[in-house]
Amino acid sequence: MDNLDFNKHTSKTYNQELEDIRNLLLNMGGMVEKQVQKAMQSLLESNKKMAKKVIKKDLGINAMEVKIDEECTQIIAKRQPAASDLRLIIAVIKSITDLERIGDEAEKIAKNAIYLIDKSFKSDYFSDLENLAKIVANNLTQALNALARLDPDLALKIALEDDRVDDTFEQFNKEMISVMALNPQDLKNLVRLSWSGKALEKIGDHTKNICEYVIYLIKGKDIRHLDLETIKEEYF
Amino acid sequence: MDNLDFNKHTSKTYNQELEDIRNLLLNMGGMVEKQVQKAMQSLLESNKKMAKKVIKKDLGINAMEVKIDEECTQIIAKRQPAASDLRLIIAVIKSITDLERIGDEAEKIAKNAIYLIDKSFKSDYFSDLENLAKIVANNLTQALNALARLDPDLALKIALEDDRVDDTFEQFNKEMISVMALNPQDLKNLVRLSWSGKALEKIGDHTKNICEYVIYLIKGKDIRHLDLETIKEEYF
Repeated sequence: MDNLDFNKHTSKTYNQELEDIRNLLLNMGGMVEKQVQKAMQSLLESNKKMAKKVIKKDLGINAMEVKIDEECTQIIAKRQPAASDLRLIIAVIKSITDLERIGDEAEKIAKNAIYLIDKSFKSDYFSDLENLAKIVANNLTQALNALARLDPDLALKIALEDDRVDDTFEQFNKEMISVMALNPQDLKNLVRLSWSGKALEKIGDHTKNICEYVIYLIKGKDIRHLDLETIKEEYF
Repeated sequence: MDNLDFNKHTSKTYNQELEDIRNLLLNMGGMVEKQVQKAMQSLLESNKKMAKKVIKKDLGINAMEVKIDEECTQIIAKRQPAASDLRLIIAVIKSITDLERIGDEAEKIAKNAIYLIDKSFKSDYFSDLENLAKIVANNLTQALNALARLDPDLALKIALEDDRVDDTFEQFNKEMISVMALNPQDLKNLVRLSWSGKALEKIGDHTKNICEYVIYLIKGKDIRHLDLETIKEEYF
């Protein structure tokens, strides 16, 4: 396995370019993380101004994706990277698509928040959504840490955590359907709440994808669609 | 603008390699297209066996994604492509992620079909879902044609069509919420129907992404997140 040392090139500019895209990626990750937190906060605290800010900020995240994509393409064209450098760039190209889509899901949560604030709708089920959001946000932070530290063990741990996200979402969803059946007058609002849960579950999926790219980057093994428990035994 | 002629290389093997990944991509596209059709057919005809086949076949699509990804990475490492070749490979790497996720959405529709078949649930709203599915499936076919013929005009036309998908879905969704409020006893089944609509809308989003990659491939311009009407004026 080749060494993952990005300072190994004789060209200082090349080292700097690789370091730059990694930093851009981590910046984008930080922005997206904040969007998810703020979107949930706007919902829980009925803060319409904050929700609107989240929606506006999504444009900046989209622009980041395009910028990083272009930088990566240029490095491939100019530097003809091989082995671990190439894997880094491919992992970045893949990860930013997931980060951009996490941003889209945060925007959806913010839009649902505005809908519910306008209807002055509050529900005990907000706290169930908050619980789901806490698990999802924590996993996202850890996935970004794994990416920053190039830590495949942490990445695998977080990828395995996605089952808990799915279970928690299933539970939330079942509850929501029962509540809807009992309160058809609140249906439109409850649907919005349930969509926000779905958005969180999607964020969990994208987080898992990012973890898989980290493992691919370090281990040089494409583990997508494989059973994670098997991978744990075979590659770790 | 450099020429998009994949037969231009002195190395016959290199030409063949590029042609191979394009063919693999189109094969994968054909598989995914069929999955969407079959998933909808299983729902409309209450064909549980067909729905189960769709779910099983999704594994093959996932495997295709990994295979194509590996071929692309190998070509980059071995051939150090530049300009239009590199754009082709990046467009392929991006497109297969969307194709794989279209496959996931088809699988969701098939799972909802099984749920509804088990409950012997039928509804007049199946035909509204069918209408949405027709638009979405047609756009997907056209997007794959645009990719096969490297036709940016067709790609732009189909990308612009996504607004109609979104409007049709919004309409369907509003109807579903009204029907749910009036028939709380059918809520669980109606939620499944509404999820299938959401899956179709997502397929529309992924189809639009593929169209944007075709435009990027030909025009060398990243048009994601830009206003498509502006792009039409400026680049076509």
